[in-house]
Amino acid sequence: MSVIDTQALVIGAGPVGLFQVFQLGLQEIGAHVVDVLPEPGGQCVALYPDKPIYDIPGLPVCTGRELTERLLAQIAPFRAPMHLGQQVHTLTRLDDGRWHLTTSGGLAFRASTVFIAAGVGAFVPRKATIDGLAPHEDRQVFYHPAPDAALDGRHVVVLGGEDAALLTALDLVQSSRCNSVTLLHRTDKFKPENPALDAEVAQALASGRLQLVVGQPMEAEADDEGHLVALQVTTPGDTTVRLPLDTLLPRLGLSPRLGPLADWGLAMERKQLTVAPDTFATSAPGVFAVGDVNSYPGKRKLILCGFHEATLAAFAAAGIVYPERRSLMQYTTTSPRLHELLGVTTPANT
Amino acid sequence: MSVIDTQALVIGAGPVGLFQVFQLGLQEIGAHVVDVLPEPGGQCVALYPDKPIYDIPGLPVCTGRELTERLLAQIAPFRAPMHLGQQVHTLTRLDDGRWHLTTSGGLAFRASTVFIAAGVGAFVPRKATIDGLAPHEDRQVFYHPAPDAALDGRHVVVLGGEDAALLTALDLVQSSRCNSVTLLHRTDKFKPENPALDAEVAQALASGRLQLVVGQPMEAEADDEGHLVALQVTTPGDTTVRLPLDTLLPRLGLSPRLGPLADWGLAMERKQLTVAPDTFATSAPGVFAVGDVNSYPGKRKLILCGFHEATLAAFAAAGIVYPERRSLMQYTTTSPRLHELLGVTTPANT
Repeated sequence: MSVIDTQALVIGAGPVGLFQVFQLGLQEIGAHVVDVLPEPGGQCVALYPDKPIYDIPGLPVCTGRELTERLLAQIAPFRAPMHLGQQVHTLTRLDDGRWHLTTSGGLAFRASTVFIAAGVGAFVPRKATIDGLAPHEDRQVFYHPAPDAALDGRHVVVLGGEDAALLTALDLVQSSRCNSVTLLHRTDKFKPENPALDAEVAQALASGRLQLVVGQPMEAEADDEGHLVALQVTTPGDTTVRLPLDTLLPRLGLSPRLGPLADWGLAMERKQLTVAPDTFATSAPGVFAVGDVNSYPGKRKLILCGFHEATLAAFAAAGIVYPERRSLMQYTTTSPRLHELLGVTTPANT
Repeated sequence: MSVIDTQALVIGAGPVGLFQVFQLGLQEIGAHVVDVLPEPGGQCVALYPDKPIYDIPGLPVCTGRELTERLLAQIAPFRAPMHLGQQVHTLTRLDDGRWHLTTSGGLAFRASTVFIAAGVGAFVPRKATIDGLAPHEDRQVFYHPAPDAALDGRHVVVLGGEDAALLTALDLVQSSRCNSVTLLHRTDKFKPENPALDAEVAQALASGRLQLVVGQPMEAEADDEGHLVALQVTTPGDTTVRLPLDTLLPRLGLSPRLGPLADWGLAMERKQLTVAPDTFATSAPGVFAVGDVNSYPGKRKLILCGFHEATLAAFAAAGIVYPERRSLMQYTTTSPRLHELLGVTTPANT
């Protein structure tokens, strides 16, 4: 496996991780970014892309998606490679003081500094709580897109009532590839963020191409060979029905999990990484934590506080990456060097 | 003198002082604002209104004036009264723990909490360094707009070569009220921010309505009655010329001065107010310092850091103003109460 050498690795492409890239860029520190989600923006895009945020200074109102787009434009001059859809699994210290990191996507990095901007953790699919389901995971139960063989000609059950579940079920109905498609949800009321989905589901149900089972799945039933064959479902009227199936697709939303970083040996308290409030350094030299993932006296989990943290962390990192260099406090309004880095023209007459 | 009662007094209407009003508003703390400058924006508007700033998170590029306008729009829901063009002179503690403040504009406040967002200090006109000039200040030498009697039919000398000096001289020429108008500057080259001024000055000089004396004023000459009658000016060729005058208008730009707040008994180091990094409280209970005026480990004088400081200070102030209230961490994306305070509609389906 080839190893990517980098001055900085930023874990998390939410707003604070993106601004971390910007502040590192001003310090002339090159960064790579890894995020578990398929696109940058973190919570802002995964959880509330269209909800207005009112407390970003200078932006009286902007959505999570808009904030992300603005930050992506701001960091564009620094061309930081983004490695999306993968989680950083291991962090180990090398003899030379640098850090070795590996990801679920098979990447390896050697980084002088590491910035954990992981927010409330990696967003992973929320697990279904059904007795006896675990052994079937990745064989007949898929939290991520299922292989063709699990769909074509199969009886497929989609579990959930939010947009992701409705979209998955409608896509399968549309493709006509399954033997049957059943939506399993605790009520027959859906409250999709995208209101158009309600009508589409109603139409698919009316046409008979989509089935609906209302109830709570309690137990998985397997045959003698260990194959999942049915779910026991408790209905709102408290009776139990048997729902036969070949494939289960739980689509219960995303849930944040701290994940592997909890095992990296960094000092923590209450699931937060303990940091020094003047540098936002963790207990490991060269490893910083910024944004919602960290904890220090007075900490407030606000995006604008993360911006400040990322800034001081970048200054501290400069002392590691460029130990010879005198710490420079330059202003983007006046510094020709910063203008050069940002790719903007310095007015002749300053 | 009537006294204005307020939950919070913010000293300084620069970007950090303005955002302080916003964060106080989210905590339901009403604020008044005092600033020495005639308009809000602080340094951003007084020193570099049109220069681009690149490091405000989410604003890839914006001028000082634009940032100010955006912040004014953001704090508009909180309707904080602004008292501009005056300096806070005194800060004294009342028996009930509140603070009594007086301003150069004759206002008095009684405030539960005080936020010093004074930046690098109050911007005051830079003084001319001319021997023997001081006794004539406010009689024949005016750093602020001069009274009519000092201009009408007088020989007026404007000292300086920047925009403010050129504009003052051109205004006087235009008005035809003076006996003569002379621009006194160390060189015959001007570098105005507004390049159109160059041509206007050249034209006024060519028409003979404006005189130019090139040199450095060294000494003020007074008559037996103590009136200022002339300046001794050293020319670039190192000869001395005598420049007779009735009125001198130094227009040498603004220079920041910490001013009266240095005498308020607050703990300081190197002209900065020492603050706790978790609350940004000064050594005086209920008095906070945010932005460039404060000092704490790791401090960087950046606007975005001031935004963070103002936020934590507002949370700390809420504990003083509302001692009974449990500290609430609400988000502007989701809190109906914050939406109410901001005057925005909460989506029915959250």
